[in-house]
Amino acid sequence: MTSLTIARPQDLDRVLRLVADHHVEEGIALSDDARRGAVLPLLEGSPHGVIYLVGPVRAPIGYAAVSFGWSIEFGGMDGFVDELYIRPGVRGRGIGSEILSSLPLALAGAGMRAIHLEVAHGNERARKLYRKLGFQSREAYGLMTRPL
Amino acid sequence: MTSLTIARPQDLDRVLRLVADHHVEEGIALSDDARRGAVLPLLEGSPHGVIYLVGPVRAPIGYAAVSFGWSIEFGGMDGFVDELYIRPGVRGRGIGSEILSSLPLALAGAGMRAIHLEVAHGNERARKLYRKLGFQSREAYGLMTRPL
Repeated sequence: MTSLTIARPQDLDRVLRLVADHHVEEGIALSDDARRGAVLPLLEGSPHGVIYLVGPVRAPIGYAAVSFGWSIEFGGMDGFVDELYIRPGVRGRGIGSEILSSLPLALAGAGMRAIHLEVAHGNERARKLYRKLGFQSREAYGLMTRPL
Repeated sequence: MTSLTIARPQDLDRVLRLVADHHVEEGIALSDDARRGAVLPLLEGSPHGVIYLVGPVRAPIGYAAVSFGWSIEFGGMDGFVDELYIRPGVRGRGIGSEILSSLPLALAGAGMRAIHLEVAHGNERARKLYRKLGFQSREAYGLMTRPL
């Protein structure tokens, strides 16, 4: 079983390397400073989220960033899979689905009521996998975002 | 201008009455205990969100619940309009849009980087209003949720 370990401040450089690789792949443009400013609080115990290292802590093969929110309808804390990244060299082995199956259990144990993720409409392969893992599409709704 | 005031523990009964009315209208089934458990932490200074009373604090005409999360891509804290309710008797006067226009300013001042909301695909009137207020559809993506 692939281990998930909560990243701490001493893991910052390793986490930043993975996040930068992920952002290159996704076309997310963020300066090194902005990336550091967005990641460090999550390693320092911010109440707003956490980053899990996937695999060996000193040589992680990926990471999962989960942000913590609140839903009155769900009756308490909810979570959002903000980013999930597995190194290209170890993809296709089911590590992503293993994580998306163990992570909710850990978070439920910490009192979380629901966990959300966002998926591209065209990505039927991912949608099918997420459905198999217990995620239900909120097909009647769409997200709208206002950058501040 | 319609005032927005952060609800405090002493406002609990007033908030719960509004939330219950909103839930009846939306068909959200939550026991009184569950509703209380989901609302009270937000009045007690939870880091996960806040409830604003709309209008006079002792006779509010609605409420807005905003949950706080985190987005690495947006570079820090983000927010989600969890619930927004205006009493039926005072609808159609632009109070909702007034709130959705002033709320982001207040939250940006507190360091928030982006604010999200969910809208029903069929509700073109709301989508149009939200677009006018600076919200952009994330049309390529959909939310999936796993209750825990």
